[in-house]
Amino acid sequence: MHTDHSQPDKLLFTPGPLTTSSTVKQAMLRDFGSRDEAFIRVVKEIRDELVAIGGVSTEKFTAVLMQGSGTFSLEAVLASTIPPNGKVLVAINGAYGRRLVQLADTLGIETTELVFPENVPVDPDAVATALAEDPSITHVSICHCETTSGIINPVEAVGAVVQAAGRRYYVDAMSSFGAIPINLEEAGVDYLVSSSNKCIEGVPGFAFVLARIDALEETAGWARSVSLDLLSQVRGLDKNGQFRFTPPTHTILSFRQALQELQDEGGVEGRGKRYAENHRQLMQGMTELGFRPYVQPELQGYIITSFYYPDDSNFDFNAFYQQLSDRGFLIYPGKVGDADCFRMGSIGRLYPQDIQNLLSAVGETLAAMNIHAVAN
Amino acid sequence: MHTDHSQPDKLLFTPGPLTTSSTVKQAMLRDFGSRDEAFIRVVKEIRDELVAIGGVSTEKFTAVLMQGSGTFSLEAVLASTIPPNGKVLVAINGAYGRRLVQLADTLGIETTELVFPENVPVDPDAVATALAEDPSITHVSICHCETTSGIINPVEAVGAVVQAAGRRYYVDAMSSFGAIPINLEEAGVDYLVSSSNKCIEGVPGFAFVLARIDALEETAGWARSVSLDLLSQVRGLDKNGQFRFTPPTHTILSFRQALQELQDEGGVEGRGKRYAENHRQLMQGMTELGFRPYVQPELQGYIITSFYYPDDSNFDFNAFYQQLSDRGFLIYPGKVGDADCFRMGSIGRLYPQDIQNLLSAVGETLAAMNIHAVAN
Repeated sequence: MHTDHSQPDKLLFTPGPLTTSSTVKQAMLRDFGSRDEAFIRVVKEIRDELVAIGGVSTEKFTAVLMQGSGTFSLEAVLASTIPPNGKVLVAINGAYGRRLVQLADTLGIETTELVFPENVPVDPDAVATALAEDPSITHVSICHCETTSGIINPVEAVGAVVQAAGRRYYVDAMSSFGAIPINLEEAGVDYLVSSSNKCIEGVPGFAFVLARIDALEETAGWARSVSLDLLSQVRGLDKNGQFRFTPPTHTILSFRQALQELQDEGGVEGRGKRYAENHRQLMQGMTELGFRPYVQPELQGYIITSFYYPDDSNFDFNAFYQQLSDRGFLIYPGKVGDADCFRMGSIGRLYPQDIQNLLSAVGETLAAMNIHAVAN
Repeated sequence: MHTDHSQPDKLLFTPGPLTTSSTVKQAMLRDFGSRDEAFIRVVKEIRDELVAIGGVSTEKFTAVLMQGSGTFSLEAVLASTIPPNGKVLVAINGAYGRRLVQLADTLGIETTELVFPENVPVDPDAVATALAEDPSITHVSICHCETTSGIINPVEAVGAVVQAAGRRYYVDAMSSFGAIPINLEEAGVDYLVSSSNKCIEGVPGFAFVLARIDALEETAGWARSVSLDLLSQVRGLDKNGQFRFTPPTHTILSFRQALQELQDEGGVEGRGKRYAENHRQLMQGMTELGFRPYVQPELQGYIITSFYYPDDSNFDFNAFYQQLSDRGFLIYPGKVGDADCFRMGSIGRLYPQDIQNLLSAVGETLAAMNIHAVAN
């Protein structure tokens, strides 16, 4: 059961968990009591800072930390903020939109799907039409960055439509929050979900929901789950700063450090700048190596990029993955439904030099596998 | 946002999160890819070892790791292993029994309560009678160590009754697993729930369910939640070793180290021995200081102990807690419904010398508060 420390960790070019700084990890070397004052202060600082990153004030918005992965928090939003007869319009252009439908179906919540091809952004006009045609829709859900492909959806434009129609608006900002600026008030967001191990560069263990307080306060009595009850969770945190159930104390300590490092980097803008440069170099290098992106560059975010498999019969994704892994670089399988792709993330504690090293390893791997990738 | 490292961490005499070893925490200083081979191996080792700690084989039992706190896993068991028309008999002698009813109620699962005073163990005969009287009961639930008081329930004797009656048996072993021996087969357990941050001495971030495979396999289609779906979670893990949703990779790495240290200490027996000695010294010292335990010594486990407030008008729990905290010792508020108590845990990386230091601090605090605790 002993771990081999002779090798440095592989770099993670994935949608998360990500490569994190050593100082973020070192912040976990402490045991705090989950109900002690010192820990309560940390939680308060984190909640306030998250609301600030959303561009809003704690008078109108609150941050709720929730144990579990991002999906747990998405399910919590559905399970506890939709009234018994509510209906959710889910804008879908990838696997994470489809997963939201699966979450709602299992909870017995009615949905209607507005489906787009996976390399086409959600169209605000189509949302407006759907809302006009079906007054029974109470909520609209969208992904900010669809991690399936890396495409960026127009959350502000869709938010304006949703707000004009008087419906509640959910934004799955799992892979964008902290790196792509968003102002919750201006985008008309009622609930935004993200997680500890994405662009804020913490380690995995919890997720969080930024909620419009007056929307959340209306939800009393709607929860279909105790663990995943957003209003009860926030009431516990507001009452005495404590979680209802054991929080991942170490993960939370490291998240405070991660927020400090985000601030040190110039906040969302500074972080976004580094990621954008990572992405620019990745795109340039991969294009030069003959790879073609799945999403058109002008629609593509700088979070994660899907590339088509090369049109060469020598290409085998598992072998390609393994060779890159052996060289110290972990990439990610694709998830789009209609094309053979793999993904490379530009997020986490990665710098342009890491991208260059990855590109060299890709070049060596292509040569070793005798692949001649030619962009068509 | 900077942490003061000049002070060592306070020792945690709580039900968890607990004081852990520095090597367990250091195991978190790595970033593993959640879908990479190296991480998959760690998860496999952990699952196999947990089944072994349950005294059974992986042919009949499986271990399912589930993101979130222990309560999330308890809810997962209820949400996904009870048929649509199932009914749970909940044996209750504390807050955790009552919480199980709350979880079931919110999920729309029928329950019937078998309630005992909080310092009286669950009576197997009463369970047998209740099962005989109500054939619609499909499942029985019990806490092994009721963390509310620290009382130990007769899980084996109740299990025999449940098995004889042909019902499924849930054991909440949150605060006992890893320190109080249990053989799942002999105790007739179908599902046992515990968490990463209790007696195995890992850090918080996930919990786990040991499930009888043939019972779990019957549950297809019953899940009321996607996140908290036990069968889907195990099918994902069995298929390719991967979690369906982002796992707390760092917490899991540290848990493997914690399992190694459990083994090094002589397994469940060795760990139980240290905790029992911690508890013996705690009881002796607290009794000498004039405190009286809530549970009779012969019913009291060595996990956590509830003590009555001293019968002295100078006693104020918050002041007492704060003075002990200032001296570097964190204790826990009480939770029993019918008496004013506080709790002290004997678990985690604590040794008899730590207990002696705690006792000295309690003595100093009593003197400083001018309290003359006299056991009545």
